[in-house]
Amino acid sequence: MSNSFLIIEKRVRKNIERIAEKARVNNVVLRPHFKTHQNLQVASFFKDYGISAITVSSIRMARFFAAKGWKDIFIAFPLDVNEIAEMDLLAKQVNLMILINHPEHIKALNQLTHSVDVMIEIDAGYHRSGIDVNSYEQVLELVRMCHETEHAIFVGLMAHFGNTYISRTKQQILGIAYKSANRLSDLAKKLERETGQFIYVSIGDTPSVSVLNQFDRIDEIRPGNFVFYDLMQLQIGSCELNDIAALMQCPVVSINSKRHELVIHGGAVHLSKESIDFMGVKTFGHIVKIEGENLSFTGDYVSSLSQEHGIVQCKTENFSAYNIGDQLLIVPVHSCLTANLMKEFIQTI
Amino acid sequence: MSNSFLIIEKRVRKNIERIAEKARVNNVVLRPHFKTHQNLQVASFFKDYGISAITVSSIRMARFFAAKGWKDIFIAFPLDVNEIAEMDLLAKQVNLMILINHPEHIKALNQLTHSVDVMIEIDAGYHRSGIDVNSYEQVLELVRMCHETEHAIFVGLMAHFGNTYISRTKQQILGIAYKSANRLSDLAKKLERETGQFIYVSIGDTPSVSVLNQFDRIDEIRPGNFVFYDLMQLQIGSCELNDIAALMQCPVVSINSKRHELVIHGGAVHLSKESIDFMGVKTFGHIVKIEGENLSFTGDYVSSLSQEHGIVQCKTENFSAYNIGDQLLIVPVHSCLTANLMKEFIQTI
Repeated sequence: MSNSFLIIEKRVRKNIERIAEKARVNNVVLRPHFKTHQNLQVASFFKDYGISAITVSSIRMARFFAAKGWKDIFIAFPLDVNEIAEMDLLAKQVNLMILINHPEHIKALNQLTHSVDVMIEIDAGYHRSGIDVNSYEQVLELVRMCHETEHAIFVGLMAHFGNTYISRTKQQILGIAYKSANRLSDLAKKLERETGQFIYVSIGDTPSVSVLNQFDRIDEIRPGNFVFYDLMQLQIGSCELNDIAALMQCPVVSINSKRHELVIHGGAVHLSKESIDFMGVKTFGHIVKIEGENLSFTGDYVSSLSQEHGIVQCKTENFSAYNIGDQLLIVPVHSCLTANLMKEFIQTI
Repeated sequence: MSNSFLIIEKRVRKNIERIAEKARVNNVVLRPHFKTHQNLQVASFFKDYGISAITVSSIRMARFFAAKGWKDIFIAFPLDVNEIAEMDLLAKQVNLMILINHPEHIKALNQLTHSVDVMIEIDAGYHRSGIDVNSYEQVLELVRMCHETEHAIFVGLMAHFGNTYISRTKQQILGIAYKSANRLSDLAKKLERETGQFIYVSIGDTPSVSVLNQFDRIDEIRPGNFVFYDLMQLQIGSCELNDIAALMQCPVVSINSKRHELVIHGGAVHLSKESIDFMGVKTFGHIVKIEGENLSFTGDYVSSLSQEHGIVQCKTENFSAYNIGDQLLIVPVHSCLTANLMKEFIQTI
């Protein structure tokens, strides 16, 4: 065991329970994004909180969970028109919801022989993907095309408020989330008036869902990262340090006394190359200690990475306590990418 | 098939043949680093060029290739003292060479019941890991400790000239490589005079090995990336565009006409978050066309990534030719990280 991805089950369950309860109180569907963990054990935790509908980001992931008995799956990624045959096969087995944002997507759906639920992707301000929230006519045209396509059942609108990631406080997240949600629900209401059809509205992103307590005119939330949280979410203001439920454990394999550096077996193929500026430094992960059930930062951090090596920069007062063979605990910058790289999870404390 | 890692076998073989021939002419051992590909098919290509000794960077990788019949394995990563029992088991099955740079490493080797070859890691200027090339007494002390440890057979010195990666021309690579190699061989000669023992000298890094044509007082070369090359190696000056033997193929899933952007299914979990400044832009991968057997840049590039999404920024004159469903060919920034994420390789042209 060179290095490990540790999950703290008690915290994972607390994170799930908190959002599941919030969804229940607000009468919205929690359809968690399973791309964060892609893991059957974590998936089983969700079942304990009554979750049966899930989100994934690829057909590969959809097939994986479908094979394990999940029957209500949203592939919340713009349709790859090269994959229609695979979609059709999957739609035979599960309730499949897919995402479109272009007329070519709907044209491709003519090849389907089984029905799928269709969501239209709206860009509510993030500007990554989706139809601009102000381009009403474009949305209406896609709805019309769906209505003319036998196996494409138009259901509603979805957005991912990824621009919440620039936030650094809960207030900033709320500002972006409210503005985006209002734009989206206004569009939904306008579309409802025109089509006479109920428009289902689905929003994503862990920051919004972590801090919002009301979901006016929202029917579904699709957070993923909240199950683990990480350094980035802490920086954004989505969580507290003691909500973080996933840590990397990496051994010290080398020590440089002159530079107060440790070399750990924890590189880009474990932590990922994601970095942020945090507490005044560029970090690929921050070292923590556990006392009782509480985490605290040591001030030491992963300052650079190569494929398998991580370099930990230590504070002078901490350095002398480290030894070759010590197992460091690291809060990853982005737990989704670390989980994807590590694959196997080990339960701890 | 949503997206794929393509390898061009003819080029892979040409890259291997070129370095294998260089090793033969210079009478040095080519012990390729298999962390780049971690793939049995690519490993089999190496066999065709007479390669039997390999380098890996973890005991997991060593076990994987040992199980497939590779019998001469160097784990070129500082010893994790927590893994001695696993090392010992492996040393029973194969000729195992390991890497140390600290007295605690050698103390841990007392637990071995099977002999391993021991290399001492030297820092010849990169400053990532290893004993400073000028700290002769420290090196000598480790050699003495090895001699007193029953199953630790001291063999020689190794260095990774990772500082060649700051180069932008072949001349710059040569400057760093010569300087580093001279420092290392001077240390080896001094140690030979003092101990009366032949000191085996091993160097790594694709840039050095790609441009050096003489290897004075070097016994072994351990390049890894050269089998595929990538955008970073092209930038450094290690290769030409038409030496690059691995490409990502990603479908266009969305198009934004206002921003001249494409959304592709190719994100951080495919390309990795490694970026470089290349041709005046920050890129996570550059789009290429193939004409006959030649690659050429289109000028379009992956400008940002999230977990599964890639955003391609297009030149105005190229944009209108793209369609939903098109399969783009992308030169990855760092082929080792992309190969590690993709796992499965598909042969092309």
